[in-house]
Amino acid sequence: MKDLTKILYPKSVAIVGASEKEGSVGNELLKHMLEFGYTGKIYPINPKHTQIMGLKCYAKITDVPKEIQLAIVAVPAKTVLDVVEQCHLAQVDDIVLISSGFNEIGGEGTILENELKAKVQKYGMNLVGPNCLGVFCGDKKLKFDGCFAPTVPKTGTVGFATQSGALAGGVFNISKKLRIGFNQMVSLGNQADVDALDVISQWENDDNVSQILLYLESIKNPQKFRKVATKVAMKKPILCIKSGRSTAGAKAAASHTGSLAGSDNLAEGLLASCGVVREISLKNLFDDAGVLGNLPLPKGKRLAILTNAGGPGILATDVASDFGLEIPTFSDELQAKLKEITMPQASRKNPVDLVASCPAIHYKNTAEVLLKNDETDMLLVIYLYIAGKHDMEVFEYMQELQKKYPKKPIILTYMTVPEFFDDVKKKYPESTIPLFDYVDDAVRGFKLLCDRKDFLEGVKEKTPIFDVKKDKTTKIFEKAKKEARTLLSTKESLEVFKNYGLPVPKFVATLKLADAIKNAKKMGFPVVLKMSSKTISHKTDVGGVVVNIKDEKELEIAWKNLEQKLKNADMWDALDGIIVMKQIKGSREFVAGIVESAGYGHQMMFGIGGIFVEALKEVCFRPCPLKMYDAKALVNSTKAKKLLGNIRGKKAVDETKVVESLLKLSKLVEDFKDIKELDVNPFMLDDEGNFFAVDARIVTK
Amino acid sequence: MKDLTKILYPKSVAIVGASEKEGSVGNELLKHMLEFGYTGKIYPINPKHTQIMGLKCYAKITDVPKEIQLAIVAVPAKTVLDVVEQCHLAQVDDIVLISSGFNEIGGEGTILENELKAKVQKYGMNLVGPNCLGVFCGDKKLKFDGCFAPTVPKTGTVGFATQSGALAGGVFNISKKLRIGFNQMVSLGNQADVDALDVISQWENDDNVSQILLYLESIKNPQKFRKVATKVAMKKPILCIKSGRSTAGAKAAASHTGSLAGSDNLAEGLLASCGVVREISLKNLFDDAGVLGNLPLPKGKRLAILTNAGGPGILATDVASDFGLEIPTFSDELQAKLKEITMPQASRKNPVDLVASCPAIHYKNTAEVLLKNDETDMLLVIYLYIAGKHDMEVFEYMQELQKKYPKKPIILTYMTVPEFFDDVKKKYPESTIPLFDYVDDAVRGFKLLCDRKDFLEGVKEKTPIFDVKKDKTTKIFEKAKKEARTLLSTKESLEVFKNYGLPVPKFVATLKLADAIKNAKKMGFPVVLKMSSKTISHKTDVGGVVVNIKDEKELEIAWKNLEQKLKNADMWDALDGIIVMKQIKGSREFVAGIVESAGYGHQMMFGIGGIFVEALKEVCFRPCPLKMYDAKALVNSTKAKKLLGNIRGKKAVDETKVVESLLKLSKLVEDFKDIKELDVNPFMLDDEGNFFAVDARIVTK
Repeated sequence: MKDLTKILYPKSVAIVGASEKEGSVGNELLKHMLEFGYTGKIYPINPKHTQIMGLKCYAKITDVPKEIQLAIVAVPAKTVLDVVEQCHLAQVDDIVLISSGFNEIGGEGTILENELKAKVQKYGMNLVGPNCLGVFCGDKKLKFDGCFAPTVPKTGTVGFATQSGALAGGVFNISKKLRIGFNQMVSLGNQADVDALDVISQWENDDNVSQILLYLESIKNPQKFRKVATKVAMKKPILCIKSGRSTAGAKAAASHTGSLAGSDNLAEGLLASCGVVREISLKNLFDDAGVLGNLPLPKGKRLAILTNAGGPGILATDVASDFGLEIPTFSDELQAKLKEITMPQASRKNPVDLVASCPAIHYKNTAEVLLKNDETDMLLVIYLYIAGKHDMEVFEYMQELQKKYPKKPIILTYMTVPEFFDDVKKKYPESTIPLFDYVDDAVRGFKLLCDRKDFLEGVKEKTPIFDVKKDKTTKIFEKAKKEARTLLSTKESLEVFKNYGLPVPKFVATLKLADAIKNAKKMGFPVVLKMSSKTISHKTDVGGVVVNIKDEKELEIAWKNLEQKLKNADMWDALDGIIVMKQIKGSREFVAGIVESAGYGHQMMFGIGGIFVEALKEVCFRPCPLKMYDAKALVNSTKAKKLLGNIRGKKAVDETKVVESLLKLSKLVEDFKDIKELDVNPFMLDDEGNFFAVDARIVTK
Repeated sequence: MKDLTKILYPKSVAIVGASEKEGSVGNELLKHMLEFGYTGKIYPINPKHTQIMGLKCYAKITDVPKEIQLAIVAVPAKTVLDVVEQCHLAQVDDIVLISSGFNEIGGEGTILENELKAKVQKYGMNLVGPNCLGVFCGDKKLKFDGCFAPTVPKTGTVGFATQSGALAGGVFNISKKLRIGFNQMVSLGNQADVDALDVISQWENDDNVSQILLYLESIKNPQKFRKVATKVAMKKPILCIKSGRSTAGAKAAASHTGSLAGSDNLAEGLLASCGVVREISLKNLFDDAGVLGNLPLPKGKRLAILTNAGGPGILATDVASDFGLEIPTFSDELQAKLKEITMPQASRKNPVDLVASCPAIHYKNTAEVLLKNDETDMLLVIYLYIAGKHDMEVFEYMQELQKKYPKKPIILTYMTVPEFFDDVKKKYPESTIPLFDYVDDAVRGFKLLCDRKDFLEGVKEKTPIFDVKKDKTTKIFEKAKKEARTLLSTKESLEVFKNYGLPVPKFVATLKLADAIKNAKKMGFPVVLKMSSKTISHKTDVGGVVVNIKDEKELEIAWKNLEQKLKNADMWDALDGIIVMKQIKGSREFVAGIVESAGYGHQMMFGIGGIFVEALKEVCFRPCPLKMYDAKALVNSTKAKKLLGNIRGKKAVDETKVVESLLKLSKLVEDFKDIKELDVNPFMLDDEGNFFAVDARIVTK
């Protein structure tokens, strides 16, 4: 990873293209540097001037006699390569390139950007941009505003990297309204050199940044992203908006998995796998950052709600239930304890309703009991100013308790007059206790804390190692390759599965009826017949599957019909057998599949299967190789979870078996990177709770 | 409905329990009346004083020599009945009862509330409360603050009725931060007399109120609610938070429909049927009210997005797609027109990106082209202050265009410095153009406008009248009644369906094998056998169903097995036949059902059926009698919609037939109010697109 210290904490900055012209970028940049009070040295560079805004101006960067740590460049695109050359001569290896006219305009811009990249690589430089708004570092000793956003943001502990520079400008404008502040901002621009991953890696080890926010329109290198983001997310929270959800059309694909693998599904799975919180709205992004960056992680999901008004307590309970948090009813013992310190008409079950007329001290006493006891893990405090204005008093009590009980997260929801918020900002500018207007935001915060705890625990779980028959499997793939096939037959695919320990029903493949009958008798009726072809993968579409064969006689009829049909259709010769398979009795169908998407590598899908997989869309994706917690998430993230359980007399599956099957499939594509598509459809669950890979389809590159 | 004019626009008010004691409710009330500048007469009532706050104080309300239009009562619960009596003597028929200690505390409080109710009814009074915060009317000529919320709200055009008084207080506190203002507020309290419906009916005809907000924890009389709320919603938007979503546990019930009919599902269906916008969060409630109360309804769902920054444009597109809005790509002609009036580097496809450096006039010119043309129905304008501060200028242009093109809704999203918003408030306090920080809120606003348009059109659609065999059906129900059965046999249920025109597959019911064979041959194999019992409704659980009977021989074996089984289990005698039914070939299963829930009356459910109906929960509810648009909504609101379409070679159903089936079921329960539960499970769709009620279960009260 790149060292971006000189870009984010430069001790001296040259502004190439600094200008006296009001409204120009070069003018704005210099003005911002001066107005924010940059403590380093500034060197304006412009051949047309000798002095700008009271600073000595140099014609060329090579003219500056002192060390320059960073060049911010805002010159016309066509002169950029020259400037880079001069930077190299001046031993300036770090550049923030504001100029536009590169890849974003296509054509000659793309050519220019490629030349730029080559030069930067050749000289071993770090370059942010081009086509960006600049960078910002609010560090109090440095005060470096290297961007032309019109507003200096409220400072704080957030690191914000954005693919839309304008958005950074917009966000800085409204930052006073937010409960977070910005420590550093990088407008990524076209990411010709420095990319989002370089930036988050830099922030991983910067103690001034306690949470990382991203706005991305694309994920440049998903596989590298996974590695880097996971590592950083284990250290500090990353929250990300990945936009372009709707334009991410699903590919036209032959496999079920492929048809559902719209790139947004893949991005969703990737971010989740990395422990990156995916946000949909900017509002939530900022609200949630304030929570994740500042609070301890709870031990469990039990939320205590303390309020002085019933309505908001009920609303909070509703949202908590939406998010799968628990609102435990307090024990009689705890309720008795609360009774001693609350008004007679108070409610003490959870939510605790102190009633509107309670004095502020009741908040303190009750909250302390709730923080001390072991019946709850988190505390939501709701205060409505109605009878007696105690907002500040309650706030101060909660700050005090936050310090005294630092292990349980506390979030406040206040419906009081706006002046209170100004007073808090003035009186306690460093306060980190999240404070919202509406309970929804507070409860979502608790949910994210729980998710983060789950991630940090899950990511450490060991992924089991399985004993697989790799050599035997290699032979199957080699045979296909030798025959110049990308499609494995159903027989081959099922054998591959068996070699990797997947639960495949009993089957044989044969081209002889007598053989089929002998084996069917051995495995027991009912059986299924399936053509296994080296050229045709969608068996059902050509009538190549017969189910519900109940006895020898039916088998004979079915076989002869099938044989005739396949011979008539000239399909017989491409068969490597007809599969006789023990029929699995069950009606719960799932689908597992793997698709290879450019850049993303192998992606695993799991969910509700059967013929309606595309209609229901109850599937989710995770990147391969799966880790233990990825496999668990695949099993737990959709309504498939319910179908895996006890349902209407049908027994639950042992979920470990499903998780292990997915891990084995992941191991398979790790060993055979040549696999392009893989479908297990259906993955069937019989009424006794046994899980079977009933059909298989493998396509290589 | 009650006439609440004297409660909301009283010309003279007595405050019974007015007090000099700081912090007491009686003190607060009087203070609020004076401070807000009430223009009517105030009569403090308190036997302990002769004067309070400079006003003459009377010992009893009967002592006041002038007309009193409204009494606001804040005295201890035990003296309330006396006060009501005195109000009657003083000819005061309108009361706002603040006092608590009634039904909310149970026991003697409930007894007291019942006595209160009786008295109020006897005297024909209107009473708001008890246990409430009071009422508020911001009318400029009246200025009536009859509640003890600590803050006077920002005034505007919203009518707000709330079951949580404290919430009204909280909302008033934060009202300055909202883009709406309150015209009137009624804290409903225990709704002993005046209820939410009385209030919304009052607001229906009050021109000062342009949108109605509700916070409800329960829906008192759902059937009356439906009638009243629909009528009012046709005139002005109603937005409602119905809390207690999570506590609404599903009933333990024998029917599928029953088990899914948690009261929140019913509330959801009821509100949707009435055209009431159900809100989950307070924030959305207020944001959406500002949109629905102020904008024209669009002609269609085509949204044009105008922005000066790419990022927010993409975010808006994402949300629009989530909500099913269209972002049409503009015609070449329109793009050419836009090219003439935008910067060269602008993007003109939709979103139109004017780029950060564009002058304000580009917004005006482009917006005007977009409002004039017929390629779009709605306009989202996004402005980020980045290069040049044009926020006010753009705002003023948009206000101008709003007036010039009043038929297309415009919503603004601004990311500019907070001062702008203060400036707008000062300069254009009457401005009605919605203005948000984040695109999500804006796009949701457009979605709600589209929904409202759909509702207003849908509610006017005629519901067809069907020719049904009521008399024949009556006989079936009478027979069961005579036999003291609440359960109809499967045969009877299917006959009832046939009488009401539902598509039932060919079937006969017989107890003779020969008969079964004869009929099976006539209808054609495969067939299904089902026991039809007068006592047992869950046939499958007792093995009373045999499917896939392919020929006469299989039928004979199946029949004999079934007969033996039922005889052995002593179930044979309770049969009114074994049904031989033509088997429907298909794998798309739906469920329709009706459940009777106390208060809610008959409720229809429709969705994805089969054995996993409870696991998938892809069902929705609507109240009976269904209107045309309810039936359509049932068909369109879940993923069932997709299964009804062309899917993997299976043909789509003619949706009219499904809609009509639901309407016929609705007609059935309208004619036979005695029906308690009704399940059509499955409602099957065969691969040719034919729809059949395959199984039936009817239970009467």
